[in-house]
Amino acid sequence: MIYLDNAATTWPKPRQVLDQMVERFAAMGVSPGRGSYDAALEASDFIHGTRTKLARFFGAPDANRVIFTANATDALNTALLGILKPGDHVITTRLEHNSVLRPLYHLQQNNVITCTIVPFNQEGFVSPQDIKNAMQSDTKLVVMTHASNVLGTIQPVKKVGAVCRARGIDLLVDASQSAGQIPVNMEELNASVLVFTGHKSLYGPPGIGGLVLHPDLEIEPSRFGGTGIVSSSLVHTREFPHRLEAGTHNLMGIMGLSLAMDYLSEKGISTLYKQEMELIKELYRGLFAIKGVELYGSPKISTHGHLAVLSANLDNLNSADLGAILDGDFDIAVRVGLHCAPLVHKTLGTHKRGAVRFSLGIFNTGADIDHAIRAMEQIAQ
Amino acid sequence: MIYLDNAATTWPKPRQVLDQMVERFAAMGVSPGRGSYDAALEASDFIHGTRTKLARFFGAPDANRVIFTANATDALNTALLGILKPGDHVITTRLEHNSVLRPLYHLQQNNVITCTIVPFNQEGFVSPQDIKNAMQSDTKLVVMTHASNVLGTIQPVKKVGAVCRARGIDLLVDASQSAGQIPVNMEELNASVLVFTGHKSLYGPPGIGGLVLHPDLEIEPSRFGGTGIVSSSLVHTREFPHRLEAGTHNLMGIMGLSLAMDYLSEKGISTLYKQEMELIKELYRGLFAIKGVELYGSPKISTHGHLAVLSANLDNLNSADLGAILDGDFDIAVRVGLHCAPLVHKTLGTHKRGAVRFSLGIFNTGADIDHAIRAMEQIAQ
Repeated sequence: MIYLDNAATTWPKPRQVLDQMVERFAAMGVSPGRGSYDAALEASDFIHGTRTKLARFFGAPDANRVIFTANATDALNTALLGILKPGDHVITTRLEHNSVLRPLYHLQQNNVITCTIVPFNQEGFVSPQDIKNAMQSDTKLVVMTHASNVLGTIQPVKKVGAVCRARGIDLLVDASQSAGQIPVNMEELNASVLVFTGHKSLYGPPGIGGLVLHPDLEIEPSRFGGTGIVSSSLVHTREFPHRLEAGTHNLMGIMGLSLAMDYLSEKGISTLYKQEMELIKELYRGLFAIKGVELYGSPKISTHGHLAVLSANLDNLNSADLGAILDGDFDIAVRVGLHCAPLVHKTLGTHKRGAVRFSLGIFNTGADIDHAIRAMEQIAQ
Repeated sequence: MIYLDNAATTWPKPRQVLDQMVERFAAMGVSPGRGSYDAALEASDFIHGTRTKLARFFGAPDANRVIFTANATDALNTALLGILKPGDHVITTRLEHNSVLRPLYHLQQNNVITCTIVPFNQEGFVSPQDIKNAMQSDTKLVVMTHASNVLGTIQPVKKVGAVCRARGIDLLVDASQSAGQIPVNMEELNASVLVFTGHKSLYGPPGIGGLVLHPDLEIEPSRFGGTGIVSSSLVHTREFPHRLEAGTHNLMGIMGLSLAMDYLSEKGISTLYKQEMELIKELYRGLFAIKGVELYGSPKISTHGHLAVLSANLDNLNSADLGAILDGDFDIAVRVGLHCAPLVHKTLGTHKRGAVRFSLGIFNTGADIDHAIRAMEQIAQ
């Protein structure tokens, strides 16, 4: 299988990461933060060490405000349901994933918030000016993706952050697609909240994601339970990170994520990113030359404005059919349909047939790209 | 380390389960339920197969109502926040874990529900009659643990279920401690909801738990996002299991859980349970004979009414100090304090000093028990 669905989840994971994870877990997989025996303390230390590693990675001031969640969707829900209060106005973009749009829509339908959704331009970028123009006196939060999961376009989040700072509005950056590929620095972006997931470009296992909070941000829990501290109280612990973490941690997932981050930093994230971008540019050029191929987003794949993600259609084929041919005849795995980002496709005019998304990972090679281009050429003929 | 903290999380996990899990995940760890290429469909099938396995295991009528969550706390929150509506009355017990008490307390403090908490008797059992007596015309739900995580006492849930059925009240059974040790059959218990976790007596990894719903139960989501189907809608998918699952699944955790269940059924759950109960009775007898040891719950450890869990104190030692000596001088890992079940300890009168909990797993041996008894004897002297 030639795997070009890395924007859904990266595959394969580095084998040594999985092997080391199991060794560690087999040796130290007790209940962290609860027991007071040595092994339990060691497990707790490992978790705190991973928080510290993530805080450094994301330029966050406080490791205790690195919150572990089940995935990015859980992190986004925790953030949106925990931050927004009745009467708040929220600005978001048409580039967002359903994990942002659906909780916001739910809050809107229940008359908790009002929401403005700003567009993106033909190249796939949101304009900071549009966001500025959408700001109201009751705007509490701007929620936007760091990079589109359909188009791969990296958004001008830093500029949006500056606009937010000037107006005293919180910014939530969904770094699900970008974290692990390009620098994501909370302070530089002026973000109050960062959301990440472990199983995409951070090359960890699924089941672990998180959010990173600025210490000034006010946020209430939406899950309640045991935290391992102050067990006597019926009120859920207010202290961070416990305030937003209830129940037994996914220690194995945290171990996998931590080891994967070590692997990435050893290889060099910027080196891996450049390698992926060379390949996606090759793919772009190859597909661009095929008659009948339509490519979405910015026509120029630069290393500054893009991740290694590209969406396309061929003639008037439905994306599901094109994907099925790529899979069945060429053993190429891509993602078809709407990529959980319906408003992107509404803007592109591909709401009905979707698009085929090619997304690269650190294990893809030039041969994979050649194969994909040749496959598309053959299908076009 | 002699590990006697299996009620927190079982350790070690069967090594072959971890190894097989990593092999499967390395081979098939793509995004399930999203892609339409072969590997993605295979991953989806694996997840559905695990739902089916769990449905059979828990006597549930519909595999699509087996919902995966991050842990039992997440499952309990999903259930309680999803079922309860303004004006509902809830009955629960003083045996419950904070993962039940805290969400209920939160709803109560916000004037959503009212709540009655019934006591347990000196032997550590809740009386079905007490629950019946607490029922009101607005009682919507009875929430109770299948077995106490402090005392190990198995509750008369079937009788409570019969009472609930007669009154048309839903019953939620928290099977976090019992699942994997004793039969948990939804239909037999007349439960509308079962909550389980993977990392305790089911011997799976942490990061995966779930809830099993009766098809008649009405429940709303409290997390919203992508589900892999009907991506075009801004309304979170109503169809089960998607209604209560948002975001990328913990495929590796689901694989680990599934393989662990195979392991258990091969060894025979009732055989393993008997083996553990022989050992806990030995421990009970040994501790009972030590002057100054106080044992909590039913004085008679029978194979019918108990799990292999036992709580104790020694003289007027604080449980944290006793635990530290057991760990430091004897390399025995136990759990001290309140075990996230504060009302149990309030009833026992151990709210201040807590208790030392000994909890066994399938890898404990007679030698472990001898060592623990000798350790307690030496400390008592």
